[in-house]
Amino acid sequence: MKSNLHIPPDIPLNDQDELIPKFAEIGLDQFAPYLLNRITSRWNSSILEAARQYGLTTRQMRTLAVLSDKDGRPVNDLATLTVTNQSTMSRALISMEKKGFIMRKPRSSDSRFIEVYLTEKGRQVFERFWPVFYWHFRRLFHGVEESEFAAFVATLHKILRNVQHQPF
Amino acid sequence: MKSNLHIPPDIPLNDQDELIPKFAEIGLDQFAPYLLNRITSRWNSSILEAARQYGLTTRQMRTLAVLSDKDGRPVNDLATLTVTNQSTMSRALISMEKKGFIMRKPRSSDSRFIEVYLTEKGRQVFERFWPVFYWHFRRLFHGVEESEFAAFVATLHKILRNVQHQPF
Repeated sequence: MKSNLHIPPDIPLNDQDELIPKFAEIGLDQFAPYLLNRITSRWNSSILEAARQYGLTTRQMRTLAVLSDKDGRPVNDLATLTVTNQSTMSRALISMEKKGFIMRKPRSSDSRFIEVYLTEKGRQVFERFWPVFYWHFRRLFHGVEESEFAAFVATLHKILRNVQHQPF
Repeated sequence: MKSNLHIPPDIPLNDQDELIPKFAEIGLDQFAPYLLNRITSRWNSSILEAARQYGLTTRQMRTLAVLSDKDGRPVNDLATLTVTNQSTMSRALISMEKKGFIMRKPRSSDSRFIEVYLTEKGRQVFERFWPVFYWHFRRLFHGVEESEFAAFVATLHKILRNVQHQPF
């Protein structure tokens, strides 16, 4: 069932005359962005709580995780990957360097770029926290088979590309 | 390849002796909570921007959406569904009532419970915004076929149940 709603003319959908469903016709339970927000918010609360017990903030924990996946990342990339704005990221890195978790070094090929490396201490701090983090991850996907998980991640990659590359 | 990490004994996984992979072995790109955070953050920024152009905050827009899906919801449910804490929700509802978007009424069967209803003005405000909201939703799932979308939403429901009912 379609409503009599039209996409406004300043909105570049392919077919301006397309009738669109009402929100209630899609339904809250099928509106994926709503589900994404509910899940992400609960996940973040539980991880915040868990990280705090290891003396870490969410941002520190994310930075350690991202660096333990791949070391020597530029500050800009770290900001994007930890979903943090640039200036907050720079401040967080100064504080993490003081704690001895990371080192900032000018890139050898171009000293205008700063790259961030995990210290041995930073690595150990993350490795102590990781089993708890992993447990939460496992619990989140409890009852989701491997093939379902793979399909889910493939769709997430698709929509991440959409939010990154389309003119929102 | 498994690491020599173990789940700590105070973490109730089924098999305490299970060896768990390192974070770098899973990889950032396969770590779904990271993808969920990246996507949700970008989605919320674009919706915040769009709602603002219609004179709405994200919370007001979510409240109108949730009520346009189903009217007469209790305040607690609205707080959960819009991912807002209780006291912030109560304040937001007072402000939305002043704007003439909603009405709060005691439940007829038990006046201790307040139910929230959309006014005609509130409905119109949301209906003006909805096509833009829908356009963002369509863009988010650009290139995702109907069956892929259905599978994605089914997995989201599974993991939403996990974050709601498991002792995080």
